[in-house]
Amino acid sequence: MTLATSLFAPVEADLRILRDNLRQLVGAQHPVLRAAAEYLFGAGGKQLRPALVLLAGRATVKGSDLTPRHRRLAEITEMIHTASLVHDDLIDQSDTRRGVPTVHSYFGGQVAVLAGDFLFAQASWYLANLDNLEVVKLLSKVITDFAEGEIRQSLMAYDTSITLEDYLEKSFYKTASLMAGSLKAAGLLSDLSSPEADQLYSFGKHFGIAFQVVDDILDFTATAETLGKPTGSDLMGGTLTAPALFALREQPELRVLIGRKLEEPGDLEAALGFVHRSSGLERAWALATDYTRQAVEALAVLSPSPARQALIDLTDYNLSRRY
Amino acid sequence: MTLATSLFAPVEADLRILRDNLRQLVGAQHPVLRAAAEYLFGAGGKQLRPALVLLAGRATVKGSDLTPRHRRLAEITEMIHTASLVHDDLIDQSDTRRGVPTVHSYFGGQVAVLAGDFLFAQASWYLANLDNLEVVKLLSKVITDFAEGEIRQSLMAYDTSITLEDYLEKSFYKTASLMAGSLKAAGLLSDLSSPEADQLYSFGKHFGIAFQVVDDILDFTATAETLGKPTGSDLMGGTLTAPALFALREQPELRVLIGRKLEEPGDLEAALGFVHRSSGLERAWALATDYTRQAVEALAVLSPSPARQALIDLTDYNLSRRY
Repeated sequence: MTLATSLFAPVEADLRILRDNLRQLVGAQHPVLRAAAEYLFGAGGKQLRPALVLLAGRATVKGSDLTPRHRRLAEITEMIHTASLVHDDLIDQSDTRRGVPTVHSYFGGQVAVLAGDFLFAQASWYLANLDNLEVVKLLSKVITDFAEGEIRQSLMAYDTSITLEDYLEKSFYKTASLMAGSLKAAGLLSDLSSPEADQLYSFGKHFGIAFQVVDDILDFTATAETLGKPTGSDLMGGTLTAPALFALREQPELRVLIGRKLEEPGDLEAALGFVHRSSGLERAWALATDYTRQAVEALAVLSPSPARQALIDLTDYNLSRRY
Repeated sequence: MTLATSLFAPVEADLRILRDNLRQLVGAQHPVLRAAAEYLFGAGGKQLRPALVLLAGRATVKGSDLTPRHRRLAEITEMIHTASLVHDDLIDQSDTRRGVPTVHSYFGGQVAVLAGDFLFAQASWYLANLDNLEVVKLLSKVITDFAEGEIRQSLMAYDTSITLEDYLEKSFYKTASLMAGSLKAAGLLSDLSSPEADQLYSFGKHFGIAFQVVDDILDFTATAETLGKPTGSDLMGGTLTAPALFALREQPELRVLIGRKLEEPGDLEAALGFVHRSSGLERAWALATDYTRQAVEALAVLSPSPARQALIDLTDYNLSRRY
């Protein structure tokens, strides 16, 4: 499930600088956080979000190179994303992510709270110093959306009455809001007009949801080895995603299993079976494809460039993730 | 250690509105957080920080009443303060605060992370919507200062080589920065000139440190009943404050006890004895008095008013706290 690095070609050098800066920022002054910083911003991260920001910056900037503010925005985006992962894993008590122990399971809950707070705080400070009130508002909204998404997810656990719309809203809050807000912000830093910047927002929003839907499909179809966690983990933890919600419409027995939190022996296997025998996975692919189409349409506002092409290629790549 | 309410007289009605708004904000939409909100913004809080902001607003505003932005700033200040308490208690594993269980010990660590993040996030969003970039920068700096202070505190535990300056810096980050930044912001929202607003910053900084020094003295002199935690808790947890740092200069045996983390039976009692027999408490009072004098001097920039008088009275009140 790692992103093929060549897709990031137009911003590969930029991403190297970004990674060094983030490691430096978090680790250099603070021995307590040094190990966590190496861990968080070491070689393993896929850096999808800052890559999107840097690509959007390169696709829109008027001069020949990115400005320091575009680079700073990409760093802010990765810091917010990382902070939210660290706290989410702690809240959800997830012990591994992509096959490696999470910060709280490796360094303890105290370091996890501290590291997340430090990253959120530093991100707000950098954000204010971009000196652009509209960008500050966009990204502050993203931070509240994360908290909203995490709360909604906890409220929706094992609730078979939730609708596809509830799921899409939660996916927006937890995944797409950051992509939408940071991509629009990249456009604003390139002095795009407001309608043009709104199209970048639309790209981020639709791509973000498509990305989340594919992630949620893979939770049913990929192997534990690829996922870095057991197949069906979302369902087991009570998170009902697109494939399960579609399957529930056809398989009433699935409701019973989820209603009892898959607690009896064999429940998870039976539930996975119901999802696979339904049209749930197929309809989830159709959903991801539809959102991808809308994402690509939004890019029509940009002039052709290697960076714009890379954004389009990323949407293709997302739909090609099958295991 | 509760603040005499009459000191807040000029803003008592404002504080009632603030408390209702905060309870509403956090609890109304989110059942998960409702109990925590009642708990955090119920009748128990002393609301010192929003009271300072509201008093500074009333002491400087040009019209006859506070503006909605002053009120919002006071809410933001209380939200940031509360969020930091909730996360600090979790990081420090403190089970009680002012005699009542902390959020993490009552509702669990997950709710504590979530509630703190929600409050920080909502505070950033409100902040951005004050539409004043200088105010956004001031308060973002405060949020990074909190994280910095918490990290420094964890680095300094049981370290007898720390200086009074280290202690004062840490106290600035953890306590005075919020008072300084939010008071200056209140002045900016009243359209004070930059030098005038800087005097409010100076008041908040010096009063904040004086307030922290008195709190730290009380940890040695007050009863467990008044403190809501055992006497000497700071020292026991490795936090070396002004009285202990002064005492260390006169009582070399104290260094030995702290060096072994007060782990042998009778160590805490012996250490408290050394501090009481030294000039540590007296010198800490002198320090608090000196910072208070500087705080009051900074208020000379404001015209006399009941609100300005209340700020002066609060500094007197702080020095009168003896148990």
